[in-house]
Amino acid sequence: MRHTISVLVENKFGVLTRVAGLFSGRGYNIDSLNVAPTADPTASRMTIVTRGDDATVDQIVKQLQKLADVMKVVDFREDEYVDRELALVKVAVDSKTRAEVMQITDIFRAKIVDVQPKTLTVEITGDEGKLEKFISLMKTFGLVDLSRTGKVAMSRT
Amino acid sequence: MRHTISVLVENKFGVLTRVAGLFSGRGYNIDSLNVAPTADPTASRMTIVTRGDDATVDQIVKQLQKLADVMKVVDFREDEYVDRELALVKVAVDSKTRAEVMQITDIFRAKIVDVQPKTLTVEITGDEGKLEKFISLMKTFGLVDLSRTGKVAMSRT
Repeated sequence: MRHTISVLVENKFGVLTRVAGLFSGRGYNIDSLNVAPTADPTASRMTIVTRGDDATVDQIVKQLQKLADVMKVVDFREDEYVDRELALVKVAVDSKTRAEVMQITDIFRAKIVDVQPKTLTVEITGDEGKLEKFISLMKTFGLVDLSRTGKVAMSRT
Repeated sequence: MRHTISVLVENKFGVLTRVAGLFSGRGYNIDSLNVAPTADPTASRMTIVTRGDDATVDQIVKQLQKLADVMKVVDFREDEYVDRELALVKVAVDSKTRAEVMQITDIFRAKIVDVQPKTLTVEITGDEGKLEKFISLMKTFGLVDLSRTGKVAMSRT
């Protein structure tokens, strides 16, 4: 089962290394991770997507809470939450396929952010299912490049 | 000066720890970092935003290229590129301020993704300047929660 964990950390050197090391040292898989500033300049927030049964994830959460410079850990599996991810997708096009790629982009409420003679670059946001579906459609035209942010999450309450 | 570095890595345990450790061990600051799957199931892509003069960043890039399981490093400062970031922003609202927050959300072409009696959660994408501006406006209403992905980048060529 996949789990989404949010970790509020102090902006200290080495905190990302310690968090990443906790996962790799114990053989826990990270599907995606991101870390970025918060409104508080002394803190950053990490969002980590990992796999494992509930007991494994409970263990991860407990170990995260014990790490230096970790202020708060939220395991979203128990809460109702919103999650979103962004991807930039560069697709091969020619005079025949460009209109078709533009139509699909429109259907997904995605946005064309760059046009070149032989490629279109699309920005798409949504949950994982939407992104996977769009990316798999673009593969039929020719995926030139793909960059995903990994998801961020927020409780509804 | 800020730089955006894209690192293509093999999906092996410990590669994120090694990359993060290279930065923290040498006292290089990471402003944001994300790592997520690519179209190739054996590889992931990291995007790292860091600070430093050109000589420092050259050094970082060279050291990254020497790390095990690192396949490709691109320093975007030399290229034309597109970059985007996503944020979820939870804002305090009441019956008087809700309409105003909705108007600003509309002006920024952002999207309301959750409504609660005392909060709105907004999804916004754009470059860093746009996100910073929106977040700073939301602070005047009351920022309840903020989760940013850090940016992803793609060359225009």
